[in-house]
Amino acid sequence: MDFIKELNGGFSVIENLKVSGARESKYGVAIIYSPNSTASAVFTSNKVVAAPVKYTKNMLKNGIVSAVFVNSGNANCFTGKQGFKDCEALAKLVSNELKIPEDEIAISSTGVIGREMPMGIISEVALESLSKLGNGPENSLAAAKAIMTTDTFPKECAIEVTLTTGEVVKIAGITKGSGMIAPNMGTMLSFIVTDAKIPANEINKALKKASDISFNMIVVDGDESTNDTCLMMANGASDVEVVKDAKLDSNFQEALNYVCIDLAKKMARDGEGATKFIEANVCGAKNLEGARLAAKSVISSSLFKSAVFGGDPNWGRIVSAIGYSGCDLNPDIVSIAIGNDLDEVDLVKNGEILAFDNTPQLKRAEKIMQSKNVIVNIDIGLGDGEATAWGCDLTYDYVKINAEYTT
Amino acid sequence: MDFIKELNGGFSVIENLKVSGARESKYGVAIIYSPNSTASAVFTSNKVVAAPVKYTKNMLKNGIVSAVFVNSGNANCFTGKQGFKDCEALAKLVSNELKIPEDEIAISSTGVIGREMPMGIISEVALESLSKLGNGPENSLAAAKAIMTTDTFPKECAIEVTLTTGEVVKIAGITKGSGMIAPNMGTMLSFIVTDAKIPANEINKALKKASDISFNMIVVDGDESTNDTCLMMANGASDVEVVKDAKLDSNFQEALNYVCIDLAKKMARDGEGATKFIEANVCGAKNLEGARLAAKSVISSSLFKSAVFGGDPNWGRIVSAIGYSGCDLNPDIVSIAIGNDLDEVDLVKNGEILAFDNTPQLKRAEKIMQSKNVIVNIDIGLGDGEATAWGCDLTYDYVKINAEYTT
Repeated sequence: MDFIKELNGGFSVIENLKVSGARESKYGVAIIYSPNSTASAVFTSNKVVAAPVKYTKNMLKNGIVSAVFVNSGNANCFTGKQGFKDCEALAKLVSNELKIPEDEIAISSTGVIGREMPMGIISEVALESLSKLGNGPENSLAAAKAIMTTDTFPKECAIEVTLTTGEVVKIAGITKGSGMIAPNMGTMLSFIVTDAKIPANEINKALKKASDISFNMIVVDGDESTNDTCLMMANGASDVEVVKDAKLDSNFQEALNYVCIDLAKKMARDGEGATKFIEANVCGAKNLEGARLAAKSVISSSLFKSAVFGGDPNWGRIVSAIGYSGCDLNPDIVSIAIGNDLDEVDLVKNGEILAFDNTPQLKRAEKIMQSKNVIVNIDIGLGDGEATAWGCDLTYDYVKINAEYTT
Repeated sequence: MDFIKELNGGFSVIENLKVSGARESKYGVAIIYSPNSTASAVFTSNKVVAAPVKYTKNMLKNGIVSAVFVNSGNANCFTGKQGFKDCEALAKLVSNELKIPEDEIAISSTGVIGREMPMGIISEVALESLSKLGNGPENSLAAAKAIMTTDTFPKECAIEVTLTTGEVVKIAGITKGSGMIAPNMGTMLSFIVTDAKIPANEINKALKKASDISFNMIVVDGDESTNDTCLMMANGASDVEVVKDAKLDSNFQEALNYVCIDLAKKMARDGEGATKFIEANVCGAKNLEGARLAAKSVISSSLFKSAVFGGDPNWGRIVSAIGYSGCDLNPDIVSIAIGNDLDEVDLVKNGEILAFDNTPQLKRAEKIMQSKNVIVNIDIGLGDGEATAWGCDLTYDYVKINAEYTT
């Protein structure tokens, strides 16, 4: 897509935006200051919902956000009335420092469930973070780092998009997520800002479309979190309207998809304990829903994830995972190939097994399975439903991280 | 239930029944010889179905089974027309040796997917097994061992049940399963024989009821297999009818439930790599379906399973798993307790958190989590839906076993 150009610097590419991050031991605070932005968000579908999710859902009703407060280390979930009061206190703190109305401040949290927020230390780190607001690449990176929990690297994305009109706008985002990542967004927090002008309700529609093919198509362990949030703001600094005649510029939607997919893939790559990244492409499903089910089922299969860790091109586990996914399937016409960035080999073609015992296909597949990126291409052969899902292998370290992570 | 008495000896408690088992390296064969039994079975719901499943589904149409052939080491799945021919050849082999009609022989297989059956060695082991048929406890044990794959111990159950009429019948069974065990029966093969007289269609109804609360409520890794089979035979050796006036004796149904739950729990306990057994009891759900979803979701959560491995009473992960299960939930009234065979402690009571930081509840819970059996009791507080699910912890060894298991 030649109308999208990748940029460096994360949020620093957006004008009229300041960000910061600070951390003390496991508690991090990021601030995203983007005055008077139109905004909308998508949230977790878990029935247990953290206080900041309820709080932010409510404050977003007016469609305006001027700043976002994000903390890591405590999810402020299952914390009763106190949890909500703590959100209010944090909004007040940010409001006092930045001189913006309290009801224009979104709150987001990630970390342990069922412990009240340690407001002393969180407030301290918040004040430190607020004192460091700036618009350099280092500020964006500090924010991306402050929201990390078991993440092993900070995740940013920035692009420039040329609209169908020839006008240019930018989109940038940061995300955290690793472990507990599941369909419908397990613990992930993503924050996206664009300098385009776009009404809050149009942000909502575009964000839902983009989430469906990005955040909702990654799986680390099938657990879905109580705090998931993807919040998007548009500060209009470019002065470019992306909705004209009630229609969103199609290049803008593509660009937002690109940013969300990029952030989602970074999360899958950073799945807890992961050593390998897996992409499952399904085509030929009877319909879109079937393709989505099949792709996610392959990425979710503990057996296949373990096989990828062990470098075993176990296509039987792929077939089995599609078989129980709910996707329509005729084993006699299915095709499965495995590839990496350089090579691809057919394991099963139209139901015929090509990779077994000492066939050259099996040898090549075994070599491919040693790669850091493993790509599974599945052709169901029944229709034109297509979908892609992303995940990672299941490793000793996944178990270790989650057996030791203290409540 | 004082009308059920546990017996030793597995299949040896049933008259007119001979069993055997033999093994050569990874290939095992068990034979269950129970002439002229009425029979029915429940099978995998995976859309990819192994040849022996199709074969046996078809041969069961007449409702009579005289012998069952079971092999481990090769699943005979995704093997095209040859797979079906191999089933026929095996039935012929058993038919020749036992002098019974081919169409009264059920075939069942477990093992690797997508490789043709190595008929040479399988036939050799089959003949060896057939030569060892007998009715002692050692014969039953040999059969239970012959069907093992990654199982670490053989699994048998035998009981005597006093019917509501005062008459006595027996039920015995063996099972294999470990890994790939999921809701709706991941790779498990179970074979149950009773000496009661019961028509095939009544076996089917009773077996479905029993499976729903046993085999379909265990989860090891969420993967569902292509070969799952639970086959039940009634050889009538007791001469006792258990269906009278078109109604199944309720004690018989309870006893069958008991056998199925016992076998299912043994499978969960032997989940690949498991060090701990987990039971999740849900009550107070709005309805039965909600209770089943919640119980299975807790047992399936990789995060909670890892926490159990690490001995961490992480009730936040329990709440979160219920939250995304699809079960209706109001976090403000939920109660969660953790126990073992000796102790039980409330972690959350009517929405109030009792176990945090250094509360005595947390200390007791930490001690309980060191047990081999961990019991989670959840009261949703909304209705009278109840369900129980069983599973095991997620360990380094699960990953090791499945990363190394060769295709």
